[in-house]
Amino acid sequence: MRDVGEITEDFCRIGRRLVSEGLIKANFGNISIRSDDGFYITRHGSYLDLPGELVYVPLVGQAPRQASSEYRVHRQIYKETPHRAVVHAHPPHAVTLSISNDIISPVDSEGHLFCPCIPIVTGVPGSEELALNISQGLLVSSVAIARGHGTFTGGKDLDEAYIRTSLAEHSCRILILLNQINP
Amino acid sequence: MRDVGEITEDFCRIGRRLVSEGLIKANFGNISIRSDDGFYITRHGSYLDLPGELVYVPLVGQAPRQASSEYRVHRQIYKETPHRAVVHAHPPHAVTLSISNDIISPVDSEGHLFCPCIPIVTGVPGSEELALNISQGLLVSSVAIARGHGTFTGGKDLDEAYIRTSLAEHSCRILILLNQINP
Amino acid sequence: MRDVGEITEDFCRIGRRLVSEGLIKANFGNISIRSDDGFYITRHGSYLDLPGELVYVPLVGQAPRQASSEYRVHRQIYKETPHRAVVHAHPPHAVTLSISNDIISPVDSEGHLFCPCIPIVTGVPGSEELALNISQGLLVSSVAIARGHGTFTGGKDLDEAYIRTSLAEHSCRILILLNQINP
Amino acid sequence: MRDVGEITEDFCRIGRRLVSEGLIKANFGNISIRSDDGFYITRHGSYLDLPGELVYVPLVGQAPRQASSEYRVHRQIYKETPHRAVVHAHPPHAVTLSISNDIISPVDSEGHLFCPCIPIVTGVPGSEELALNISQGLLVSSVAIARGHGTFTGGKDLDEAYIRTSLAEHSCRILILLNQINP
Repeated sequence: MRDVGEITEDFCRIGRRLVSEGLIKANFGNISIRSDDGFYITRHGSYLDLPGELVYVPLVGQAPRQASSEYRVHRQIYKETPHRAVVHAHPPHAVTLSISNDIISPVDSEGHLFCPCIPIVTGVPGSEELALNISQGLLVSSVAIARGHGTFTGGKDLDEAYIRTSLAEHSCRILILLNQINP
Repeated sequence: MRDVGEITEDFCRIGRRLVSEGLIKANFGNISIRSDDGFYITRHGSYLDLPGELVYVPLVGQAPRQASSEYRVHRQIYKETPHRAVVHAHPPHAVTLSISNDIISPVDSEGHLFCPCIPIVTGVPGSEELALNISQGLLVSSVAIARGHGTFTGGKDLDEAYIRTSLAEHSCRILILLNQINP
Repeated sequence: MRDVGEITEDFCRIGRRLVSEGLIKANFGNISIRSDDGFYITRHGSYLDLPGELVYVPLVGQAPRQASSEYRVHRQIYKETPHRAVVHAHPPHAVTLSISNDIISPVDSEGHLFCPCIPIVTGVPGSEELALNISQGLLVSSVAIARGHGTFTGGKDLDEAYIRTSLAEHSCRILILLNQINP
Repeated sequence: MRDVGEITEDFCRIGRRLVSEGLIKANFGNISIRSDDGFYITRHGSYLDLPGELVYVPLVGQAPRQASSEYRVHRQIYKETPHRAVVHAHPPHAVTLSISNDIISPVDSEGHLFCPCIPIVTGVPGSEELALNISQGLLVSSVAIARGHGTFTGGKDLDEAYIRTSLAEHSCRILILLNQINP
């Protein structure tokens, strides 16, 4: 069982990678790690590369008001799937394709291997509806996209969830570049 | 009331974020914070990630010649709106759309929520005409764009003004990517 | 003969350049250096900017299971070519063109000079088939691309292999930008 | 008169900005500063963010063999123009437009103001022909582009030459983005 200090270091390390790769800008996005009967999540409005104090949200009952506004989606993912960590980001190419497609099928080797069929779901950001739809998506894929909003990825830890976010954006970027040269 | 040291640290911190996100290149752009009967603004020609000494400009009367050449726009915004901080940047996608559109309507969730209708105004950089037009724009939107020049955003502090700049560029980038795959 | 410490420093230095230039994202890509009767290669799943402990793979016989899953390609390159270092990356523009072309002919000065004809080969990532095809490609060009997967470059050291990766992506990006303005 | 230590610090500072902005990749590009009867220039094949020892080239007579292969262009610029510093970079959007155009006319405010008409010249990289053509271009514009190769900018110091490089790439990027949305 890791203490909050180690968990916070993980959040900083992965937050910096998400920001430096351009998967998250400004204070958007949020990440969490499963722990005991709940999960640690970034604060509402925090910069992921400087997350500050984490917020603990129980799986059952009230969430502290400082928790990220997307805590419902994270909570539902932990209730419905075996994932132990969740990353929500706003990668521009993935968001773009989520507006013009109902499902995304990568054509690059890595995308084809690790996320061959990325579901796109609907729901107002922060809503229970989005929480239900994303958690269903993450039962069949390691990545799901909230239409026009951003990616949600699950994994055994933050590294795996981050890597899957990066992979999805890479695959979507290649699909858009391909479309530009072969409309 | 914060002292100049704390204000300068804020300028450095936000300047570095604007530069590392690519919202500002080289020595372009300028930012300011409201204080007493005037505001602190970056020096003319300074790098926003290394702003050096700030310049204090009174709301009434002469501005020091070291002040950013866009001080008139900042001053007018503080006279006409409740904003306490202003960020002027040159985000490439926002600038591009400002040339080909009269108004920008984001389609991504965040843009649709926080800047649903971005006004584009005209006026020579640094001019009173631009100052009047931008300040009018910032009465109805948290972001306004000087055609072919760059974004102006207001907020309660530099963080909020920076976040709105980043959001506007994110939304404009997605509009351009969407247009490329669905002309 | 350099010791493992110096070799590891080289891996870190070049890994950071590959990541900061966007030639590699997340934990993708792998790099190696020829040494004695084998080569040092990055661990399977490691971040190239934080490679950690390197794995030594002999040219003949079993490879340690911690070695990058692409060790077969690196091994074959060392068997068939005079290269002393190999970089495998996933540059988005090079990957995109590898899907829509059979060969890539740069039109910029540097690409035309240093990699005038970039072969694109097939083969499942990590397979002996890919190893044979890439090593053949690197006999005639300093860069070869595994279709839809990524670049492989050889050189006298990691710097040269990295520089050739960067050059190939630069040339491919310009080809794609040119195609966009003159379809 | 500044000593070599101060000049070297300037090279490092500007080199890091050129690299972090993506105006230069890998070990491409070169920069110089006028001094006495010659100029200091980066070494052939050096990384601009880690230039190492600078090379002094006299305006008349042999250049040391360690000097950048583009020293002839820098020397000719100093002979024919009043510029005190020169930056040669490979910005992807500027290089792309240099292949498809004979002259570049920016439409953004800054480009229109500071480099309204960017000449594109021909000549083999490193050749006297290129040196003559670029130096002629820099008599009428602060930026000139070697077709398919890269930008050359002059200024009163490295900061000014870097800022003009950044501005030219910004203007070219906007021209390409505009062309994509309004072919």
